Amino acid sequence: MEERDIEKLLQGVKSGEVDIDSAILALKEAPFEEMGFARPDTHRGLRQGASEVIFGQGKTPQQNCEIAHKLLEHGQKSVLITRMSKEAADYFFQNKKAEVEFTYDEYCKIGIAGQQIDTSSGVGKIVVATGGTSDIPVAEEAAKTAEVMGNKVVRLYDVGVAGIHRLINKETMGEIMSANVIIAIAGMEGALASVIGGLADCPVIAVPTSIGYGASFGGLSALLSMLNSCASGVSVVNIDNGFGAGYLASMINKR
Amino acid sequence: MEERDIEKLLQGVKSGEVDIDSAILALKEAPFEEMGFARPDTHRGLRQGASEVIFGQGKTPQQNCEIAHKLLEHGQKSVLITRMSKEAADYFFQNKKAEVEFTYDEYCKIGIAGQQIDTSSGVGKIVVATGGTSDIPVAEEAAKTAEVMGNKVVRLYDVGVAGIHRLINKETMGEIMSANVIIAIAGMEGALASVIGGLADCPVIAVPTSIGYGASFGGLSALLSMLNSCASGVSVVNIDNGFGAGYLASMINKR
Amino acid sequence: MEERDIEKLLQGVKSGEVDIDSAILALKEAPFEEMGFARPDTHRGLRQGASEVIFGQGKTPQQNCEIAHKLLEHGQKSVLITRMSKEAADYFFQNKKAEVEFTYDEYCKIGIAGQQIDTSSGVGKIVVATGGTSDIPVAEEAAKTAEVMGNKVVRLYDVGVAGIHRLINKETMGEIMSANVIIAIAGMEGALASVIGGLADCPVIAVPTSIGYGASFGGLSALLSMLNSCASGVSVVNIDNGFGAGYLASMINKR
Amino acid sequence: MEERDIEKLLQGVKSGEVDIDSAILALKEAPFEEMGFARPDTHRGLRQGASEVIFGQGKTPQQNCEIAHKLLEHGQKSVLITRMSKEAADYFFQNKKAEVEFTYDEYCKIGIAGQQIDTSSGVGKIVVATGGTSDIPVAEEAAKTAEVMGNKVVRLYDVGVAGIHRLINKETMGEIMSANVIIAIAGMEGALASVIGGLADCPVIAVPTSIGYGASFGGLSALLSMLNSCASGVSVVNIDNGFGAGYLASMINKR
Amino acid sequence: MEERDIEKLLQGVKSGEVDIDSAILALKEAPFEEMGFARPDTHRGLRQGASEVIFGQGKTPQQNCEIAHKLLEHGQKSVLITRMSKEAADYFFQNKKAEVEFTYDEYCKIGIAGQQIDTSSGVGKIVVATGGTSDIPVAEEAAKTAEVMGNKVVRLYDVGVAGIHRLINKETMGEIMSANVIIAIAGMEGALASVIGGLADCPVIAVPTSIGYGASFGGLSALLSMLNSCASGVSVVNIDNGFGAGYLASMINKR
Amino acid sequence: MEERDIEKLLQGVKSGEVDIDSAILALKEAPFEEMGFARPDTHRGLRQGASEVIFGQGKTPQQNCEIAHKLLEHGQKSVLITRMSKEAADYFFQNKKAEVEFTYDEYCKIGIAGQQIDTSSGVGKIVVATGGTSDIPVAEEAAKTAEVMGNKVVRLYDVGVAGIHRLINKETMGEIMSANVIIAIAGMEGALASVIGGLADCPVIAVPTSIGYGASFGGLSALLSMLNSCASGVSVVNIDNGFGAGYLASMINKR
Amino acid sequence: MEERDIEKLLQGVKSGEVDIDSAILALKEAPFEEMGFARPDTHRGLRQGASEVIFGQGKTPQQNCEIAHKLLEHGQKSVLITRMSKEAADYFFQNKKAEVEFTYDEYCKIGIAGQQIDTSSGVGKIVVATGGTSDIPVAEEAAKTAEVMGNKVVRLYDVGVAGIHRLINKETMGEIMSANVIIAIAGMEGALASVIGGLADCPVIAVPTSIGYGASFGGLSALLSMLNSCASGVSVVNIDNGFGAGYLASMINKR
Amino acid sequence: MEERDIEKLLQGVKSGEVDIDSAILALKEAPFEEMGFARPDTHRGLRQGASEVIFGQGKTPQQNCEIAHKLLEHGQKSVLITRMSKEAADYFFQNKKAEVEFTYDEYCKIGIAGQQIDTSSGVGKIVVATGGTSDIPVAEEAAKTAEVMGNKVVRLYDVGVAGIHRLINKETMGEIMSANVIIAIAGMEGALASVIGGLADCPVIAVPTSIGYGASFGGLSALLSMLNSCASGVSVVNIDNGFGAGYLASMINKR
Repeated sequence: MEERDIEKLLQGVKSGEVDIDSAILALKEAPFEEMGFARPDTHRGLRQGASEVIFGQGKTPQQNCEIAHKLLEHGQKSVLITRMSKEAADYFFQNKKAEVEFTYDEYCKIGIAGQQIDTSSGVGKIVVATGGTSDIPVAEEAAKTAEVMGNKVVRLYDVGVAGIHRLINKETMGEIMSANVIIAIAGMEGALASVIGGLADCPVIAVPTSIGYGASFGGLSALLSMLNSCASGVSVVNIDNGFGAGYLASMINKR
Repeated sequence: MEERDIEKLLQGVKSGEVDIDSAILALKEAPFEEMGFARPDTHRGLRQGASEVIFGQGKTPQQNCEIAHKLLEHGQKSVLITRMSKEAADYFFQNKKAEVEFTYDEYCKIGIAGQQIDTSSGVGKIVVATGGTSDIPVAEEAAKTAEVMGNKVVRLYDVGVAGIHRLINKETMGEIMSANVIIAIAGMEGALASVIGGLADCPVIAVPTSIGYGASFGGLSALLSMLNSCASGVSVVNIDNGFGAGYLASMINKR
Repeated sequence: MEERDIEKLLQGVKSGEVDIDSAILALKEAPFEEMGFARPDTHRGLRQGASEVIFGQGKTPQQNCEIAHKLLEHGQKSVLITRMSKEAADYFFQNKKAEVEFTYDEYCKIGIAGQQIDTSSGVGKIVVATGGTSDIPVAEEAAKTAEVMGNKVVRLYDVGVAGIHRLINKETMGEIMSANVIIAIAGMEGALASVIGGLADCPVIAVPTSIGYGASFGGLSALLSMLNSCASGVSVVNIDNGFGAGYLASMINKR
Repeated sequence: MEERDIEKLLQGVKSGEVDIDSAILALKEAPFEEMGFARPDTHRGLRQGASEVIFGQGKTPQQNCEIAHKLLEHGQKSVLITRMSKEAADYFFQNKKAEVEFTYDEYCKIGIAGQQIDTSSGVGKIVVATGGTSDIPVAEEAAKTAEVMGNKVVRLYDVGVAGIHRLINKETMGEIMSANVIIAIAGMEGALASVIGGLADCPVIAVPTSIGYGASFGGLSALLSMLNSCASGVSVVNIDNGFGAGYLASMINKR
Repeated sequence: MEERDIEKLLQGVKSGEVDIDSAILALKEAPFEEMGFARPDTHRGLRQGASEVIFGQGKTPQQNCEIAHKLLEHGQKSVLITRMSKEAADYFFQNKKAEVEFTYDEYCKIGIAGQQIDTSSGVGKIVVATGGTSDIPVAEEAAKTAEVMGNKVVRLYDVGVAGIHRLINKETMGEIMSANVIIAIAGMEGALASVIGGLADCPVIAVPTSIGYGASFGGLSALLSMLNSCASGVSVVNIDNGFGAGYLASMINKR
Repeated sequence: MEERDIEKLLQGVKSGEVDIDSAILALKEAPFEEMGFARPDTHRGLRQGASEVIFGQGKTPQQNCEIAHKLLEHGQKSVLITRMSKEAADYFFQNKKAEVEFTYDEYCKIGIAGQQIDTSSGVGKIVVATGGTSDIPVAEEAAKTAEVMGNKVVRLYDVGVAGIHRLINKETMGEIMSANVIIAIAGMEGALASVIGGLADCPVIAVPTSIGYGASFGGLSALLSMLNSCASGVSVVNIDNGFGAGYLASMINKR
Repeated sequence: MEERDIEKLLQGVKSGEVDIDSAILALKEAPFEEMGFARPDTHRGLRQGASEVIFGQGKTPQQNCEIAHKLLEHGQKSVLITRMSKEAADYFFQNKKAEVEFTYDEYCKIGIAGQQIDTSSGVGKIVVATGGTSDIPVAEEAAKTAEVMGNKVVRLYDVGVAGIHRLINKETMGEIMSANVIIAIAGMEGALASVIGGLADCPVIAVPTSIGYGASFGGLSALLSMLNSCASGVSVVNIDNGFGAGYLASMINKR
Repeated sequence: MEERDIEKLLQGVKSGEVDIDSAILALKEAPFEEMGFARPDTHRGLRQGASEVIFGQGKTPQQNCEIAHKLLEHGQKSVLITRMSKEAADYFFQNKKAEVEFTYDEYCKIGIAGQQIDTSSGVGKIVVATGGTSDIPVAEEAAKTAEVMGNKVVRLYDVGVAGIHRLINKETMGEIMSANVIIAIAGMEGALASVIGGLADCPVIAVPTSIGYGASFGGLSALLSMLNSCASGVSVVNIDNGFGAGYLASMINKR
């Protein structure tokens, strides 16, 4: 029941065409979503920028391809597809409309359909830092999500605490000290979040990764570390959840 | 070695009083903390506002009392003491300087020494929501931390999802839709964070609490729920960590 | 906004006293809880019978006492207080109104204020079975909750599988075969739920208890057992959650 | 030893043909299953309706095919095969008797042999709700099990709490408020069960699914959430156990 | 219905005093426990020897005292009470009948009422070995349970693997090589079971204890070690379950 | 240093050929294994019967084949190979010596080389019971291990507690009541061990299996159940460890 | 049988007083501990220095006192008692011999009897670093254990990674770079071990502490972090095991 | 900024070419890594010997090949590649420079490029012991890492505690008693570390392996055992972390 429906109903009441009991009933049954404050579904809700993100995993190659085209038809300039399999990308190349541009990064499992992201035009500054090179796919998921939502992203990869000079030097520290939000991504012992949290003056979003051997237990070790960080200003998202971190960082950056 | 020390050294070099080798040595040994970008220790680092927070747990009544007085002497207007035992508060009342005001909330285990928080003057808006009434001590720790750092805080207590009408009504929704940051605090199944995360348009900081029976395993149930939230924009801090959530919310609110 | 408020508003529209735009606004803001389908808060929601249950744990003796009296004043005949401490019961005896009857079972930590439960008048048949005698406090919480909601309850205590003849004999089997719902309560290895589930023809609600030693890990052992029951028709509630089982059993019994 | 055997034995005793010691021995050895109250094996026990369910997983294609044909020969109208692999379905198509109808849904891994389920004729109303689309295979297992046992099923898929407007609107709420039993199926944080449990007035069977990433730990996150649900009337079955939920829902619906 | 009751019934049939229908009914209703093969309840079932064991924990001082006296009256010579609190023992001393002997070992929490155990008369040989001195209370529970059931017990305490010469010397090895059953009790890393299992030629019952610090997690470390023992012939009972080990050892010893 | 070496040395001392210091040195260095009480390596130690068991998993097809032939050459009559892959069995058939008989059961992954087991000649009676049909491979590993070591084995398969009449009937109960040792094998909730432990009068070896879905967590559920069994006389071996159970049962049976 | 006993026996053989068979028997029976390579029991085995360590926890005040005096009588200069309760210390003061010096540090629960440790005379350099002030009791246990074994110890307390400037400055770095062994002690996220491991050039012994809140799970978080350290040269001892770290550090320092 | 740069800057100050403010700025910005105490990155930091180790897992065959050649060009004599896949080794053979020697051990997944390790020239003595033969790949990773760093290594494989005579005999004990460092590698119950720790007089590095069945939970069982070792001088590295143990052993051996 949209606003004009309510108006129409009230006019009926006023004119006598609708009796009051019927009107009461109709109003009581007005569905919730039309009350104006419910946000549209999150997965379809990134329309704050001019782009859209599809979570590719668990969708068929065909589904990925169709949803992306539909979004482009509805005016999205770019569509980012995360956790996109090689198979889905191949399908996309073969089945995409001629005018749709498409690039795919197999290592990070990220596809971009439509206008490629113009990283020069982002606002604010989000730093995405990783402990090792193996964390890069998760980092790129975070970074590209933030970029596609219109943020400026600086990447600081492989600055893990086992060689702390890589982190604590003028250039890296300069980026960290001037960031608006930092995404700290690490597997194994996940100490990066604490060290950066202790140095930086801005919110730090910690992303544990499932990278590690033996007793890392699929990311549990890094997850617990990050939750127990002795630095203030650190919060944590799910293991390997680069998209979630990028989305939240954009939210904070645009406050 | 502060800036004026470096200046003095360089003047010595210029004047010939200090030979170059000695100067090189002195400079190489300059401790890191003087390089300008290291933040002061977090626990002593809330000086962004005019107030300070002491983590009372694990400190003796005497230590709590002494640190608070020292901070007040150094110009802090208010000092917030979290997780302060009844015993520590009693000690404080008996040993405080006459001119130091002190209030204590036994239920939330929070003491405030010095000028009481003026909640009317805060900036922005941080909503602190809890699932049940048992989560209130953690919530007050978050709320008062945010207030003492100069933020405006709105409390929405006992709006858990088992009676969703308490959450989804005009007044509550209005607060949620207009918040700058939301802190969602819940024990048991921790679903509050997901529901609020799905409704709100701003960052949500989820705080699992150790409230619960049986298989809640000291907060593990709520913690896992919140980490797996299907809503975007949600991140998590440690179990019962009200202080951490309040601190982070303030950081985001002041972006 | 209750129904008569809507009616009044519509009459205002009809009569021209209220213009349509104001009416639209008023209606859009009508809080959710007045839409008619939201159930009142669960903890205050047992009004289907003539009685009410208070979860006593985590409430002060004073709170327990006040809530119970308030409910009795509002017309409840009986008020059941679960997990009520000895201290709270003592307080109750000393502070209750003269006309309020009160009984307390220290072993099961259950208090009953007002008219005592008349177990002869219940409908249907709910069997409450336990593996051992140590499970009885949880069982009584379940049984009394069901009784206070107006159900007939049969108790089969200490019929654990280690002495299966206690379970599989004519009398016990007769009760199990003729039950409408069964609540199977057991700690340690929790096998009772599977065995009863395999024998009975009705829904079985399994309640793991925290009774056990060593590797029972506070009820985890029984919980996992019951979730993995090879018998169909078995579902599980939280560890030691007698109230939840009794409430659900009543719901099913009254279908 | 059936009743007539006992009779015969006693007549032998009376007539002197059987001496008392032999009779005592024979009676002491009378097998339990003849005492009349033991239910047939659960897995073969769904004969309450005109149909039968086979748990296909862990059986060879040949076994699935043979058991289904045997059941049809013995008078079953329909046979539902859950968790049936593509390979098993292919085998079935190639080896089935000409007169046996067979349909297979690869996504939900469900095969139906014999007369297809007539969903129009079910009794009562069981609502099957899922948090996301990935939960649908488990949901269909539950729904089809309930249908094959003669229940009327309403499906509410993808009504997860991250977009609560999908759940709280007139149509969906109408179904929930008028249900006899609800099966709430969700992975990740499993909050759906609590929200529905807080809204509905009937028993809710919660099914955690193994859907999720990172710290969902194969369904553990949703399982703990559901067990700790703050809503009353909610009980839980094993992870992904759609069959168990459907079976139990039918039991309750037919009370 | 005991054997003589059946006999009487059959004689009634023979003589014509009892008609056949009544006899059939009586026989069908004969409770299971009288059919001859059901073992009496385990907790009351140690009557193979002349003694009885009461599990004292979770029973009130009064209950312990009463049960023990009842058993003595029924002809038991000795009654062993395990996990008996100091408080329960004091109660016993004050309330026991004059003629009842009673000894209590506070360290091991074991009381013996009636005729004291005559350790010289046991049969076979059960070795009870512990890794450290802290494991002794559990070991005594095992040893005394075995003795009270009529077995000969040899104690080898504090022979843990950190000083393997304490285990591997002529005297100790002699006892191990000539044992009929061995109970290996250890906390911490629980390696004792594997080492003894590798040396001995007889069944080894491993009892993990909750002794340990840090990551021993209440006995979990020793429990997992023992379950994963690389030696054959080792099986495990619950953490700290000395009674269970002693009971099982007696069963095996008396084969 | 064998006995004759010591003798020779002492004769050297006596005759003066060996000086005392050298003799002391030689004696102090005498290796441990010659002291007479160390058992040969367990894996090579089953020579109590006329047969031998090889743990096939983790060995190459070639290794399995060679070890088996070597054992047969050294006089073993039969060699049992557990957890033998299809590939290893195929290799065996192709590479075995012409005179070596070989049978392979693919379902249970058990190969037998040499003289086939003569099950008629075993001593004592070991009952091997399983909860379901999926537990049979583990059960056969236990049963065949016991048979190859010369024990008589009775198999009671698919007698799980969900249909307790399958367990509690004259024939099955007769086997259980007359067993010398029982191996109870079950996955899921593992209740079989408790029920049998409550009925039987002999040692019960419980084997949890990894059979199960959802929250069975690879056998953890059954493992915890069995450790917490409320029946006395039950001990537990590792998950799926059929060999270990069979070996231990033989040890006990031959006491 | 000590060396002189063997000598005596051989002389008996040589002289003919002892016949060869008797000598063989005597030698074969010589207990293991006299063979010369077995280390004395660890707990009594710190005799490499002039001091001894008693693990006070789990011993009675009297036992602590007696063992310490016995060791002093046998020539130990100092005896360190770790995890000594206030009660045990009080007992010691009241019952010690007049000439025995005794000091007690209640915070760290460490008592020293006899000659106080002369920290000036230690060899090598062991650095003991902690993340926070709450880790100091564990650190002192490690430091004093190392000192009593004759090592030089440098303490770097409260240098946790949340304020990395406290760690990375000339003075602290100088100690770390010149250490022979480092003990890194931290609770919460345990990142200190990784950061120090990445900076230092010597073995790092990591000690997780049980300090922490919420999801630190009694030290599990720090333990997993340290095991997964991305720095090489780091190994881990048990939670809160200061003694073990100090003992091992001394072993390494004295190589 | 290296030392000569600082010198040049100071000379500019002295000569007046550089004003003091500019000099202050330049000095404040001098990057950390030039301050002289930061160690180069650990993964590239094994240059203490003449060889280098590459962690092959997670690198492409091409990356492994290129890094190895680069290191050889820069003067390394040998390059050890751990966890190298068969595929990577094949690539190496096909793409290596003609003059580069290369050997590959498929079982242990170790490749050696360049001059093969001369095991005769190592210093000190590191003993690498394993419980079983399945632990050998981890052991070889440890042993070869130590050898390539210039240490002498003694291998004692398959000396597990289930057959303790394999460990406790003159030859093996001699090696253990004379070792400088011992690496104890075991899966299953991991008891080897405790037993060796109790016998040896030198630091023991324990490596749990993921070898095991059932409840070994991927090495967790051995990990917990080793952390709880009752022997002093034992510390633990991550599951299967042979490289880490070899590296640390070398560090200790070269003290």
